[in-house]
Amino acid sequence: MFAMSNPERPVRLGFVGVGSRGTSMLQTALMLEGVEITAISDIVPERVERAQQLVMESGQPKPKGFTGEEDYKKIADLTNVDAVFTATPWSLHTPVMVATMKAGKYGGTEMPACDGYEEAWELVETAEQTGMHCMLLENYAYMRNVMMVLNMVRHGLFGELTHCETGYQHDVRYATIGDQGELLWRAHERYLHHTGNRYPTHAIGPVSQWIDINRGNKFEYLVSMSSRSLGLNHYVAKNYGADHPNAKRQYKAGDVNCTLIQTANGITVTLYYDSLSPRPVDFIYRIQGTKGIYSGTLDKIYLEDTSPVPHQWEDIEKYVEEYDHPLWKKYGDIAVQTGHGGSDYLCMRDFVEAIRHQAAFPIDVYDAATWSIITKLTEESVLNKSKPVDFPDFTRSKWRERKPLPIVNS
Amino acid sequence: MFAMSNPERPVRLGFVGVGSRGTSMLQTALMLEGVEITAISDIVPERVERAQQLVMESGQPKPKGFTGEEDYKKIADLTNVDAVFTATPWSLHTPVMVATMKAGKYGGTEMPACDGYEEAWELVETAEQTGMHCMLLENYAYMRNVMMVLNMVRHGLFGELTHCETGYQHDVRYATIGDQGELLWRAHERYLHHTGNRYPTHAIGPVSQWIDINRGNKFEYLVSMSSRSLGLNHYVAKNYGADHPNAKRQYKAGDVNCTLIQTANGITVTLYYDSLSPRPVDFIYRIQGTKGIYSGTLDKIYLEDTSPVPHQWEDIEKYVEEYDHPLWKKYGDIAVQTGHGGSDYLCMRDFVEAIRHQAAFPIDVYDAATWSIITKLTEESVLNKSKPVDFPDFTRSKWRERKPLPIVNS
Repeated sequence: MFAMSNPERPVRLGFVGVGSRGTSMLQTALMLEGVEITAISDIVPERVERAQQLVMESGQPKPKGFTGEEDYKKIADLTNVDAVFTATPWSLHTPVMVATMKAGKYGGTEMPACDGYEEAWELVETAEQTGMHCMLLENYAYMRNVMMVLNMVRHGLFGELTHCETGYQHDVRYATIGDQGELLWRAHERYLHHTGNRYPTHAIGPVSQWIDINRGNKFEYLVSMSSRSLGLNHYVAKNYGADHPNAKRQYKAGDVNCTLIQTANGITVTLYYDSLSPRPVDFIYRIQGTKGIYSGTLDKIYLEDTSPVPHQWEDIEKYVEEYDHPLWKKYGDIAVQTGHGGSDYLCMRDFVEAIRHQAAFPIDVYDAATWSIITKLTEESVLNKSKPVDFPDFTRSKWRERKPLPIVNS
Repeated sequence: MFAMSNPERPVRLGFVGVGSRGTSMLQTALMLEGVEITAISDIVPERVERAQQLVMESGQPKPKGFTGEEDYKKIADLTNVDAVFTATPWSLHTPVMVATMKAGKYGGTEMPACDGYEEAWELVETAEQTGMHCMLLENYAYMRNVMMVLNMVRHGLFGELTHCETGYQHDVRYATIGDQGELLWRAHERYLHHTGNRYPTHAIGPVSQWIDINRGNKFEYLVSMSSRSLGLNHYVAKNYGADHPNAKRQYKAGDVNCTLIQTANGITVTLYYDSLSPRPVDFIYRIQGTKGIYSGTLDKIYLEDTSPVPHQWEDIEKYVEEYDHPLWKKYGDIAVQTGHGGSDYLCMRDFVEAIRHQAAFPIDVYDAATWSIITKLTEESVLNKSKPVDFPDFTRSKWRERKPLPIVNS
């Protein structure tokens, strides 16, 4: 049973995992009206204290603190917690969400929501069995440009869609190797023992919403290919000497991974994961159809019927007033004070408002499972000569009837 | 036996096919020193006359004219022809080249050099058996930016290479559908009965040279995926009415095709073919390695050790003086008077100079076969759920010993 029934009452959140990311999202939640942080959990006591301090500084009572490894279960059971948000290490995302939903609460998780088939199905089936909801807080789906593109798609500016290209292209070597050349958590979770696309959701999230994945369309299968692995060796050798053991280690992940995805209605997607090479950030965010194309790389648009010069890009600027997403128009000024270009604010806000109104989440358990499983599917493809690998249908055919995401969820 | 032995003597060329492209390349050849056009063939007599006229206007004697369907065989046998260049419809490229080499002459062809496995092997085996050479005149390998990148690669600016992205992204609907909505030759040769990448060489040519394909590296296999097909229907309906038969026809080619290619040394390539959507031209030409990245889309570069701002693109401008390709430095002023940004001139020049010096062609029969076969391999992959399809090794293992292309061939 869902604990809350009065939308005028504050939404009461428990936070599990308050390291760097969890703390940042906690601060974002504290900016929202009608939100109370009532419980904090982390295995590092100092982090719990820091988080409690932040909550109190905002004028709220001190939230209850927990430091046990499985204390997320205790938080889920608290009567003064309506929903739990987790920013733990990846391996705990599904366990925390499952415990939360089983306790009759809404859950929200950082990406990825799950690791592999078993966890993905566990997440989906727990949501279906409990009637609770679980949101992947994919903040990149709330970036101003991708939300404007979603709005443009719904206005038919690109005509019938045919193709998208997207990618997490961000040099994270500095956050993968420590300042003694040691391997940090990213190295272990992403690069040392795994290949394929280990971080797909920032890139695939917005695109999935553009092309109605799980809501009239469906990812059918993918093929994936990785380049050779040189980036981490080069980085460690350059900065910590060629004799450093991590300069000579064999990393399983290739430097650049690229994946092609086929969908039920024939829109195709190219998906990059390029995080171990010296390069400027570029998430690509390209979308095209029978009437035009937008390029996030260029932040330019070309629309056959309206662009003034045939086959010449136009600056996006002149479209912003008309097509800026309603949530950005309304909350943009506050949002930009938060992390990741303001996307953190709108993402946390959507999470909280859905809880407040007992509504479905805009990024629900089916999306969370579908976007996250790409990690597994791409690895399987890469390890088998880029063979096609089918997506599980987590909706069990409900994607055919599910309606497109509303432009404004709450 | 090769007919010519004196490098001081003019190179004597026969032209087979003098439509729009053949005529343009004829005019380019006439700009070169020490070149004589001694024979012209086309099934349209007026084209032969126009070409003869152009040659005479340049001060040369009237070349012998031919109009028979198989008169390219007669041209190959002429004693005053050293080499034959063909710009016929695609289906004649291989027959003309084979007849030319069998007559003991050098051959040059427009893209693609061949269609399918059988023609590709026929081309290779004829070259090996006759000891003659055949060049694919891939003018895009002579573009200023891609040649500068090749020069930068050889100077090690990008470190060890890991990935390239390239594509023929050029809206050719206007040249595919005639002004009554009828299907032109492009529609028949590329889109009506075929899928996959029907025009790979402009995109893959420069990249193949960057990553030493057939010269120390080798294309191993590819996977390919096509989007749904809407572009031509939309275009005909919009311009000639929804009831036009070509607005309702089913075209086999998807609007956007994307291919991933694995190579022997682990450098991967993403290859686009996007020619039926309203879009600005963009050939991508991205290359990256352990030290940096160049983007042709942006015409910008980032080099970790030298770019002034970490993870920020730099304009390419400041690198041009140092890394502009020697041939562009020397011939750039003349070249830019010719088609395709000057690439036609340098391409025809390399063709002629190799003949003059009886040297190997910079784009030889192995490259011609390898680049052209992509058409066949991608179609096979697309029609079989994007399954991996192996490249034939046209070099029969000689790629391991063949030396990288010299920066200046002649």
